[in-house]
Amino acid sequence: MANKDGFHVAVMGATGAVGQQIIKQLEKRNFPIRKLTLLSSARSAGKEIIFNNEIITVEEAVPESFEGVEIALFSAGGSISEKFAPEAVKRGAIVIDNTSAFRMHPEVPLVVPEVNSEALRGHNGIIANPNCSTIQMVAALEPIKVAFGLNKVVVSTYQAVSGAGSNAINELYEQTNAILNNEEVNPAVLPVSSLDKHYQIAFNAIPQIDKFTENGFTFEEMKMINETKKIMGMSELKVAATCVRLPVETGHSESVYIEIGTNDVSVEDIKNVLSNAPGVTLQDDPEAQVYPMPAMAVGKDDVFVGRIRKDLDETTGFHMWIVSDNLLKGAALNTIQIAESLIKLGLVSTK
Amino acid sequence: MANKDGFHVAVMGATGAVGQQIIKQLEKRNFPIRKLTLLSSARSAGKEIIFNNEIITVEEAVPESFEGVEIALFSAGGSISEKFAPEAVKRGAIVIDNTSAFRMHPEVPLVVPEVNSEALRGHNGIIANPNCSTIQMVAALEPIKVAFGLNKVVVSTYQAVSGAGSNAINELYEQTNAILNNEEVNPAVLPVSSLDKHYQIAFNAIPQIDKFTENGFTFEEMKMINETKKIMGMSELKVAATCVRLPVETGHSESVYIEIGTNDVSVEDIKNVLSNAPGVTLQDDPEAQVYPMPAMAVGKDDVFVGRIRKDLDETTGFHMWIVSDNLLKGAALNTIQIAESLIKLGLVSTK
Repeated sequence: MANKDGFHVAVMGATGAVGQQIIKQLEKRNFPIRKLTLLSSARSAGKEIIFNNEIITVEEAVPESFEGVEIALFSAGGSISEKFAPEAVKRGAIVIDNTSAFRMHPEVPLVVPEVNSEALRGHNGIIANPNCSTIQMVAALEPIKVAFGLNKVVVSTYQAVSGAGSNAINELYEQTNAILNNEEVNPAVLPVSSLDKHYQIAFNAIPQIDKFTENGFTFEEMKMINETKKIMGMSELKVAATCVRLPVETGHSESVYIEIGTNDVSVEDIKNVLSNAPGVTLQDDPEAQVYPMPAMAVGKDDVFVGRIRKDLDETTGFHMWIVSDNLLKGAALNTIQIAESLIKLGLVSTK
Repeated sequence: MANKDGFHVAVMGATGAVGQQIIKQLEKRNFPIRKLTLLSSARSAGKEIIFNNEIITVEEAVPESFEGVEIALFSAGGSISEKFAPEAVKRGAIVIDNTSAFRMHPEVPLVVPEVNSEALRGHNGIIANPNCSTIQMVAALEPIKVAFGLNKVVVSTYQAVSGAGSNAINELYEQTNAILNNEEVNPAVLPVSSLDKHYQIAFNAIPQIDKFTENGFTFEEMKMINETKKIMGMSELKVAATCVRLPVETGHSESVYIEIGTNDVSVEDIKNVLSNAPGVTLQDDPEAQVYPMPAMAVGKDDVFVGRIRKDLDETTGFHMWIVSDNLLKGAALNTIQIAESLIKLGLVSTK
C-alpha cells in the first residue's frame, strides 16, 4: 500500500541478486514509500515484481526514469552507476550506490550507519554503500576502536559466491552436481567472469576476488584496505587483506587479527564492548561450541562475532571471527539503513 | 616384489585414510621393503590390501606384531600410538608416528625433512610426524627464515575434511547431496565427532578444528603454534593461528602473514628463495591468474606457494597463500620421507 507521506524510491538493478534483496528489505522494514520505480537494463525490462501486494513492472532505465525520484538505490554495476547516478542527482534524487564507482571519491560519503552516519551530512547527491566484506568488518571493529584504539588489522576472508552475482550461485550448484555425478566441470564465471581463466569453485577455494592491481593485491583486497580507512576515518590505520572465494552460497566469514591501542585489555573487555555494539551479535562460547558460521547467518540482519582470543605474544593483539549475510548487512540492508539515516537526520524530504 | 636387502616395515592403522596413502607412497616411491606387516584394530582386521601385486591381510595389532619390525609407521590415533609405540620400540623398531601423542615430547624429534632432518640424530626410538597444516607452512617458511630471518607469523587456515578422516569425507558428500535434493541435513561427525554439537559442513565454514583449550585457541591452532616453533628451532618466534574447516575434500590452504628479520627485501627476493626451496613449487603469476588452489594440489607431492605480496605498511611484512595435499605432504608422504632420511643418515639398519 502506498504511503502518501512517503518517498518516491527508485531501485536500479531491480532484477539482480542485491536488487531483489533491496526490494525485500524495503517491504520488510516498512520503508515509507509513496511510489516505487523498478529499473533495469533493456534485457530484464518487462519483468514483474510484487511489492506490498502490488505488481510493479520493471522498466528499462533512461535518464528520464529519475524524474520525481527522491531516493535512488543503485546496484546494477559500476558502469551503470557512472552513467545514471549523475542523471538521477541532476533531477533532484539522492543516490545510494552499491557499486564501487564513487566509493573513494573525496566528496562522496562512504557509510555504515552504525559507524559514521554523521558523514552523510556532507553528501553532494551521491552516497556510497561500502564493499560487503568491508561493512561487516568495520561494524565489529568500530566499537573496539572507540573503546581501546586500533593500530593494525590483518584480515583473511572466506567469501560466498553470491557476492559475485546470480551466475556464480548457479555455477556453484551446477559444478557441485556435476562432481557428485562424476561429470566434467566447465568453469565459466569465477573468479572473474570477464577474465580469461575460470576455475572450479565446487569443493575448492579460489584466492582471487576481482582483478589484480599492480601491487599484487586484488581490487577486492584494496577495497577492504582503502574503504576501512575511509569509513573509520583513520588514514593512518595499518590494514592488509587476503580475499578468498569459497563454495558457500551466502555468508561471508573473516579471520581478523588486530592490534589495539591500549594495553591490559582482556577478552572479556572486548566481549563487553561488542555485546553493547549496535548491529553486532556476540556468538562466543567455546565451551558450548558457540561461534558464528555462514550457513547460520543467512537471512539475519546482524554482524556475528566470535572466537575472540588474546594473542599469545603481542600484548595488544587479538583474533576474532566475523560472519554476516553478504546480501543483507553486506549490501541491501546497509543500503536501506543509509536511506533511513538520511530521513532521521532530515537530509531528505518529499518534493 | 620383496627386496631381500630391504626393511621389515609395519603400518599401524593400515585401513584408515592416511594409512592407505602411506601404503601407496611406499609402493610409489619404491621404498626398500623386505616384509610389510599391515596392522589395525580388531574391527578392520581381515581386510586384504594389494601391495606390489601381493595380497596382504590386515592383522589385529598386538604387542607381538612388532617382533622383527625395523620401521613402524603409525597413523591410528593418539591413544593407539601411546599404547603400541613403546611396544614397537621395545622390540627394536623405530616408530614414525603420525599422531599428536609424542610431538611435543622434548626427547622426540618432530621432523619435516626439508627443514630439520638433522634432528633425527637425537631420536630415542620414536619420531613424530607434525600436524598436516604445520608441515606445509614450515616447508615454505624455513627457506625464508634462512635467507631473511623470521619474527612473526599469523596464519588463517582453509582446511579440507579429509584431515578429519574418512567419516568426515562421507559426511561432506552426503550433506551436499541432501542439500541439492532439498533433504534434511543431519550432521554427526564435524567439527569433532566426540563432542556434543555437530554442524553442517556442506556449503559452510566451521571455525573449529579439534577441541578448545583453556586460552580460547583450539588444539589444532595450538599444534600449529607449538610445532612450528619446535620444528624451526625458534622458541622466540611469534606465531598465531586460526583454523577453519571448509567443504573441500582434500588440500589444505593457508593465508599467511609474516614479518621477516630483514629490511629492503622485495617480493622478487622471496620468490627467488622459494623457487630454489626443496619440496616447494612457486605458483605466483597474478597477471596470468596463476596461484595455488586445493583442487589442483590433490595428488601432488609439493607445497605450492603463491599470492606473495609485500605488506603496504610494515617494511618487513609479507603475505602469501600456501596450499598442499594434506594426506600427502601433510601426512603420508612426509612420514615416508622421514623414513628415507633415517636410511640416508644411516640411523636405521636391517636386523
